[in-house]
Amino acid sequence: MTTDVAHLPNASLRGRNAPASPIRKLMPYANAARARGIHIHHLNIGQPDFATPAPILDAIARFDRRTLAYAPSQGLPEAVAAWATYFQQACGVDVPEDQIIVTAGGSEAIAFAMMAVADPGEEILVFDPSYTNYIGVAACAGVTLRGLLLEAGDDYALPSPGQIRAALTPRTRAILLCNPNNPTGAVYGEQDLRLLLDVVEEAGIMLIVDEVYRELVFDGLPRTSVLAIPGAMRHAILVDSISKRFNACGARIGCITSAHAGVMTAALRFAQARLSAPTVEQLALVPMLSDPETYTASLAAQYERRRDIVLGALGEMPEITHSRPHGAFYIIVGLPVEDAEDFARWMLEDFSAGGETVMVAPLKGFYVTPGLGANEARLAYVLGDEDLDRAVRLLGDGLDRYRTLRRDEGAIP
Amino acid sequence: MTTDVAHLPNASLRGRNAPASPIRKLMPYANAARARGIHIHHLNIGQPDFATPAPILDAIARFDRRTLAYAPSQGLPEAVAAWATYFQQACGVDVPEDQIIVTAGGSEAIAFAMMAVADPGEEILVFDPSYTNYIGVAACAGVTLRGLLLEAGDDYALPSPGQIRAALTPRTRAILLCNPNNPTGAVYGEQDLRLLLDVVEEAGIMLIVDEVYRELVFDGLPRTSVLAIPGAMRHAILVDSISKRFNACGARIGCITSAHAGVMTAALRFAQARLSAPTVEQLALVPMLSDPETYTASLAAQYERRRDIVLGALGEMPEITHSRPHGAFYIIVGLPVEDAEDFARWMLEDFSAGGETVMVAPLKGFYVTPGLGANEARLAYVLGDEDLDRAVRLLGDGLDRYRTLRRDEGAIP
Repeated sequence: MTTDVAHLPNASLRGRNAPASPIRKLMPYANAARARGIHIHHLNIGQPDFATPAPILDAIARFDRRTLAYAPSQGLPEAVAAWATYFQQACGVDVPEDQIIVTAGGSEAIAFAMMAVADPGEEILVFDPSYTNYIGVAACAGVTLRGLLLEAGDDYALPSPGQIRAALTPRTRAILLCNPNNPTGAVYGEQDLRLLLDVVEEAGIMLIVDEVYRELVFDGLPRTSVLAIPGAMRHAILVDSISKRFNACGARIGCITSAHAGVMTAALRFAQARLSAPTVEQLALVPMLSDPETYTASLAAQYERRRDIVLGALGEMPEITHSRPHGAFYIIVGLPVEDAEDFARWMLEDFSAGGETVMVAPLKGFYVTPGLGANEARLAYVLGDEDLDRAVRLLGDGLDRYRTLRRDEGAIP
Repeated sequence: MTTDVAHLPNASLRGRNAPASPIRKLMPYANAARARGIHIHHLNIGQPDFATPAPILDAIARFDRRTLAYAPSQGLPEAVAAWATYFQQACGVDVPEDQIIVTAGGSEAIAFAMMAVADPGEEILVFDPSYTNYIGVAACAGVTLRGLLLEAGDDYALPSPGQIRAALTPRTRAILLCNPNNPTGAVYGEQDLRLLLDVVEEAGIMLIVDEVYRELVFDGLPRTSVLAIPGAMRHAILVDSISKRFNACGARIGCITSAHAGVMTAALRFAQARLSAPTVEQLALVPMLSDPETYTASLAAQYERRRDIVLGALGEMPEITHSRPHGAFYIIVGLPVEDAEDFARWMLEDFSAGGETVMVAPLKGFYVTPGLGANEARLAYVLGDEDLDRAVRLLGDGLDRYRTLRRDEGAIP
């Protein structure tokens, strides 16, 4: 065998074009900072700090089957039934069990939804900024995302039906909305969903709604699920996950449901191609899915208090712009810098105060439309109250020092 | 909102064309048979009956982290290191840890490999019959599989380099081989792998080798891994899984490795798009991956004995043709029927002896090339010795009765 470099093939275009995770690509700098003994406050990733509920951990420890066997591709019957119970309790809706497929996290549910509606080269409309992993999943599936910009100054409100219609092309197969929203923290109500449903029904396309932050709404707003809108699910696909509401991101348990028979048939075939979601975690989630409120009832209140801590600290930093998030656990900040990614890296490489620094997620990678978000970052409020307050203030301190340095260098007038 | 059926969109073409699992689509008939009180001997699915090793189950029960958090997309450092240790012990090769990505089973590793080498519309050459899920994964990825037929009468030996070259097209991006083979039980040696490597290097494409049955070889044959062939991994991608060798199919832990930097960069981005493989199982597999031989040493011998039991029983049924498998735990049988799927369904719907029947996997769905395998089925020898012997004999009894019925109906002359 020769090892003729001339004949070494390139990776696929989708492999070369798939985005490196903007959240994870700063990791080497974080690792280096840690190696220097710096404590990093992580505001960069949606990994809650809360403990995983005891019923989940107990159920894992109690797994007592002799053989750790494949689950059915649709999901273990117990897990499918538990998701149906959950939807009844959380959304007040009876979902037929044959319309539920248990997935390996919300990520796989997104992939199944995209692949079930769109062929390679077809398009899905998302709202910019968008959950960054939609971009990666779309690259895998060969699906083109188009971004319709929502404005921070407008609290990320949906555009008019006319503007949304104008953003559709003959190749658009679905509109995808995350509600409550990652990364903006915006919460969309029944009127918003009805508006989108009208648009997709008229256009003969589907609506995909990612509701993994369903319970995390603040300011007394109602939880609004597309499931609860009568007749909606024939044109809609719901993507869900236990990761955030039960603080069990590493379990990799999610769900996809729709009343569109063709979509569910397709999703089941995709599920069969990957055999099954993990067996132990499917069983371990049954107790929580069957009785969600005991845990989620207080969770929104805790995140709301954290949201207020972040808003309080940011309120003392007029140079940082932001909107008021009403759900999930993220806030987008506009920074007085040219390149938030350079600033985020500098915070890890060159800044520390009292041996501490902060890691944020540059927002550029959350935009489908190129060129947007250069001076923005996403903060995830996944730290305890004191650490959170300290982290946001450290961000302000870092920003002051960074701007002074850049001004001295002549980069900022 | 109207629910205008005229505007209800179709599922994607890939969703409509993705194959329903040929293994799983007989399930409703099996469920109905069970409901009638019939005991079904399952020879249809590659789910071993052996108990999962105690170190895996113990490690699951001992999971003691406070938060069930995301693992890094590449895999938990402990899990990546354990795979490297495994490759050292099982294949005698030091694989750099940055060339290892832990996946959600071999299925996800196959998906990453296909997507990393081929864009939608491009092709991968497989050997017919093929592991059926390659077809489903390729449908998801928008990749076209081409099948090159191997002959049962030839013990599924590889064709000549010239024949393989002739099966490549300008769109072919890789050749995919399962070794030891599902569904044929064929085992390919170093000479076979070198032949394929020469072909792919000359053609400037990649070789994907699925070695999830690595340890299961019989008749004193050596284990041959593409990893152990010097220089091979720059043009090769190895797909692996713990499912079969450690009887932990439901853990969903696999691995992908290659020395092709572009392929590994692409695979890592695909891994980032799905965030992580399940955390508990990654940790739980560390003990077994770090010390595989204590468990796998006797496993091949057990399957070899079962293979002999099946061959012994089949030896008394001259109307059933078959080759002699040398590895994995499958055997393909040629049945004296027109439609093995009809026969398999009939065995569930209309046959029982002493309250028992047998379920087999019709082979039609394992062929990429349409029209092949109509009278063939795959038997998985995943039962204890006595049950296995009984199951194969029941198959013979059912076959006799089915043929008598069909002859009476005039369907068989």
